[in-house]
Amino acid sequence: MASKSQQSGLDIDLGNKCSKNAFGWAKKTFPNRENKAGRLCLGVDGAFSNMIAFGKQRIGISSDGIGTKIELAERTGIYHTLGFDLMAMVVDDLIAGGFVPTNISNILDVDYLDYETVNALMQGLHDAANATNVAVTGGEIAELGTRIGGWGKGMHFNWCSTAIGVLHPNLANPINGKQVQAGDAVIALQSRGFRSNGFSAIRRIMQANFGDTWHTQAYNNTHTWGEKLLSPSLIFAPFISHLLDHNIALKGIAHITGGGIADNFSRVLKVNKLGATLQNLFEPHEVMRKLWTLGNIPAEKAYLWWNMGNGMLFVVPQNTVEQVQALAANSQYNIKVAGHITAEPTITIKSNAVALQENYG
Amino acid sequence: MASKSQQSGLDIDLGNKCSKNAFGWAKKTFPNRENKAGRLCLGVDGAFSNMIAFGKQRIGISSDGIGTKIELAERTGIYHTLGFDLMAMVVDDLIAGGFVPTNISNILDVDYLDYETVNALMQGLHDAANATNVAVTGGEIAELGTRIGGWGKGMHFNWCSTAIGVLHPNLANPINGKQVQAGDAVIALQSRGFRSNGFSAIRRIMQANFGDTWHTQAYNNTHTWGEKLLSPSLIFAPFISHLLDHNIALKGIAHITGGGIADNFSRVLKVNKLGATLQNLFEPHEVMRKLWTLGNIPAEKAYLWWNMGNGMLFVVPQNTVEQVQALAANSQYNIKVAGHITAEPTITIKSNAVALQENYG
Repeated sequence: MASKSQQSGLDIDLGNKCSKNAFGWAKKTFPNRENKAGRLCLGVDGAFSNMIAFGKQRIGISSDGIGTKIELAERTGIYHTLGFDLMAMVVDDLIAGGFVPTNISNILDVDYLDYETVNALMQGLHDAANATNVAVTGGEIAELGTRIGGWGKGMHFNWCSTAIGVLHPNLANPINGKQVQAGDAVIALQSRGFRSNGFSAIRRIMQANFGDTWHTQAYNNTHTWGEKLLSPSLIFAPFISHLLDHNIALKGIAHITGGGIADNFSRVLKVNKLGATLQNLFEPHEVMRKLWTLGNIPAEKAYLWWNMGNGMLFVVPQNTVEQVQALAANSQYNIKVAGHITAEPTITIKSNAVALQENYG
Repeated sequence: MASKSQQSGLDIDLGNKCSKNAFGWAKKTFPNRENKAGRLCLGVDGAFSNMIAFGKQRIGISSDGIGTKIELAERTGIYHTLGFDLMAMVVDDLIAGGFVPTNISNILDVDYLDYETVNALMQGLHDAANATNVAVTGGEIAELGTRIGGWGKGMHFNWCSTAIGVLHPNLANPINGKQVQAGDAVIALQSRGFRSNGFSAIRRIMQANFGDTWHTQAYNNTHTWGEKLLSPSLIFAPFISHLLDHNIALKGIAHITGGGIADNFSRVLKVNKLGATLQNLFEPHEVMRKLWTLGNIPAEKAYLWWNMGNGMLFVVPQNTVEQVQALAANSQYNIKVAGHITAEPTITIKSNAVALQENYG
């Protein structure tokens, strides 16, 4: 239940206050399902997804949208990759709790319908579903006229989804950080670029540097800035599922979204009041370093808004690191032992690019 | 997977074409869960909600939003009733399949956050959840700036949700119309007024008759038109659950949303290529008759856009009618034996207000 305000330096306090309010009201409804189908299970507060039980089946559920990244599709006219962003936002929250994503429902709010645009979006969601082994089991298209805005003359839309998944059969309980110990290894999964966070800041920086048609600026010889910023999210759930299939003892998993590494990884660490030293993270992607320079923003902001090359972090015992590396070697995923868990409740990020320390305890 | 275009005489053909496209792509992803957790079960095409199975647990899932009814809240400054509309849209689709709603996730897209407005919305959702015995188990608030529009100066927003439910334990299979026979009784549940459909037409008619500030016009001595049109949806799921608890043989249930009685009830009837004569429906609410007159619209349109007093129709054997009436007598719900099932695939609506016939076969 996190507010997107965390993404881009909007009013973070107000965003958090509203999210807390919503969660407060939601919590009061949990007793409605006590000892019944749909009862709430552990790990609601601060978890990446919620768990509900139907008999012995434990189901994870996660809702999210892709925010203002949609403007990049409107600017470039490329619509078929957004499905990967939508899928990634929800299924990578599910897998962070050990829930293998199974189904996704999507709601597309449009101003006015354009058949070809809808077709490209739905084809993309289909492709992402096939890549993630998920079935698209629900959808709604709502035509809302002037309640929806966007860039340019095409169809404007907002797109969100709810995914559900089932607790991996090899897990007795959801993954929630309770098993994390000082000394454990922290492994980073490399992102492909920006995911669906921090786009308010991205758009602000681009506008200030290149004016209204910033997306048409050449990024390099082959791509515009618009194309580069639109690059689709890499979906991590299949890799984590694969690790679980091989009984890797995953103790904690953080999906790096709005709030960055420190905010999201602390959700895993705070359970046992531990910290981490991350001296070997993936370096930020070139596109992130360029934007960071263009925007002349402090490192802390960049690491708060964006994933900075690291789309997911997970914690495993040191003695399983080699096995994890072997499983990654034959995959499309790049991993790195990024650091280790510490007894002090401080997250320290050291890289060629920055030295940051966040005491969240 | 119905497009909201059906609601108010927007481009219905384009809406249906886009919905069909989306469903076509979704269908191709169903094999991803074949014989696995999250597998699709019967009744996907034309059903009010979809069914997925996790082991022996059969779960219904339904997604929807409340469209442009939100403008009424913006105009009147009354926000705490919309939660009932949001809940009704999804849980009454679930119960139409025999799924007792258990959990709801909601996604609130806002332009800029206003704490008090968020608080009123979330309180309303909480109240609706308590009234429906549902837990609010997920939520997301996204701040999207100019991608969201609306009326007046307050916080603008769009609000949607996904609800899940569990097949009622007294049911061997979802309710899908397969048991419906000629001669069965059709019972109508009275609505409280407009639900979340047909508001594009409502707003168009009001604007044409009263100008920009139409919501401030007196409806009667105690209410403005704005207040009257905003009246919250009555949620039918608790009553239908109650009937199922008492083992009433519910053969088919239609939630009357966009498309009206004929469109929604035909989803139940077409399974066995049957029809219905509905000569004793609830008459349209006064507010609907007034609008109908103001807009000078043909009866077919009004019965296509709005529920016309009948929020849900269900089919039971004639010999259970008395028992259903007894169960309704001690409730907040008004029911009426509206008519009966016929062998001919035609829906005939006769009332003081209209005589309509729709051959959908």
